[in-house]
Amino acid sequence: MILVNGVPQTQIDLSDRGLQYGDGLFETIEVLNGQLVFLEQHLQRLSLGCQRLLLPPLAYEIFKKEALSIVKNISKGVLKIIITRGSGGRGYRQPPIVNATRIISLHPSPEYPDHFQQQGIQVRFCQQRLSHNPILAGIKHLNRLEQVLARAEWNDDVINEGIMLDYEGHVIEGTMSNIFFVRNHKLYTPTLTQAGIMGIMRDFLLKRAQKLGITIEEGFFNPQDLLEADALFMSNSIIGIWPVKSLEKRTFSQNTITQQLQRQLKQHKRHFYENFP
Amino acid sequence: MILVNGVPQTQIDLSDRGLQYGDGLFETIEVLNGQLVFLEQHLQRLSLGCQRLLLPPLAYEIFKKEALSIVKNISKGVLKIIITRGSGGRGYRQPPIVNATRIISLHPSPEYPDHFQQQGIQVRFCQQRLSHNPILAGIKHLNRLEQVLARAEWNDDVINEGIMLDYEGHVIEGTMSNIFFVRNHKLYTPTLTQAGIMGIMRDFLLKRAQKLGITIEEGFFNPQDLLEADALFMSNSIIGIWPVKSLEKRTFSQNTITQQLQRQLKQHKRHFYENFP
Repeated sequence: MILVNGVPQTQIDLSDRGLQYGDGLFETIEVLNGQLVFLEQHLQRLSLGCQRLLLPPLAYEIFKKEALSIVKNISKGVLKIIITRGSGGRGYRQPPIVNATRIISLHPSPEYPDHFQQQGIQVRFCQQRLSHNPILAGIKHLNRLEQVLARAEWNDDVINEGIMLDYEGHVIEGTMSNIFFVRNHKLYTPTLTQAGIMGIMRDFLLKRAQKLGITIEEGFFNPQDLLEADALFMSNSIIGIWPVKSLEKRTFSQNTITQQLQRQLKQHKRHFYENFP
Repeated sequence: MILVNGVPQTQIDLSDRGLQYGDGLFETIEVLNGQLVFLEQHLQRLSLGCQRLLLPPLAYEIFKKEALSIVKNISKGVLKIIITRGSGGRGYRQPPIVNATRIISLHPSPEYPDHFQQQGIQVRFCQQRLSHNPILAGIKHLNRLEQVLARAEWNDDVINEGIMLDYEGHVIEGTMSNIFFVRNHKLYTPTLTQAGIMGIMRDFLLKRAQKLGITIEEGFFNPQDLLEADALFMSNSIIGIWPVKSLEKRTFSQNTITQQLQRQLKQHKRHFYENFP
């Protein structure tokens, strides 16, 4: 099921600036028992993205209504929202009146084995770097060639995620996830003011960690900081939290903070089961 | 007229990675009397882009045949070619077998007044910077948000182009053109190994300048270098050469090297008229 500006469709005009220039934004939201996990937060990030890209203010209520209508009878899945600057304009110049394109599509959940959550995943460093752009940093825009190129670096299914650095050698994030590490009972995660996506799950976990009294440090870290950590984990809205069991040649064992945060997330999701009609 | 994989169409599948991730490339080619100016060079850049993005080798002959068939009876226009990684793959990961999407569309020529070529244009500096990425530098890929944001900085029709710098403050290019400047009878243009697009027109002009015995320097230049130049001009495949008559508060007068290169281009295009049936 796909809605384009509220109408069921499978195609989009070739003149759409989403295709022509990657001129737009997207969100990927977990569907659980007819509901959307962190829907408000996803829409808030989309709204921030609209401000940054100078798009018209997000039609918040329309998005919400359409998104919820699509997932009404769906127990499990992924909802993808795309917003583009629509068609028109001469070249890069946007048209005087922007009619944004709103695309809402439902997809099956990716089938990740349970042991990714429990025993963890294997991770590598990517060669492809992330470039700096403070205007685009944090938001989930449609210019994703760096991620595509990074993900093309390995075909080995044993490796589940790759870690990307910026051109200064700082760790930024995974190709599709944010990264956290634990050292001496403190939780660390990269600052995303220059590159990377401000994950909705990342934000949730930082808030919960704070509530739990865990000391948090956002900053600039090197690959060596990850290799010397007590534990690592990756997060996003669909996977939740995946502990890292190995990064290159280094292996990691289970960690209390990772497990605490996994329990917090599980608890948060409980009401999506309780509320199901 | 638009052909998608050889079939007349006006729409594209929503699942196409061109829309989802800006996962592709494009070219903009001048149509002149049923022919395509610098067609081979455009296809060569497209081919280089395919290598850089790990796309299958360019179906050179098919592109050429379809492109020429569309413009057969067209005296003047712009042909746009887009190639994307097609549909499929889970997330950023490309599918095991890539079926690239081939989009060839014909557009009317933009109507620029003649005096842009003769008296020149007014130009400004943009705030939006270009980020570094040596893999993406030079090629004409579909991740163009930086250009869109730069072009959104002014609405004043008196200003015809904006100049973009990288994050180190070096001049790279215009939002839709390359930049050259003249000082003491030498021709200068920015190195594009970290950011920017290697224009087909830029390449033509560098080769012709060399033939004319003009000393050329590619390098890293600052805004001040432009402001202290004897002359500036912008180039691309559609506009040809536009001298700059003013940049911010600095004005420039006509320059011999600019005019020599304009004559070279005019001469090169002559056979597109002579050969017209």
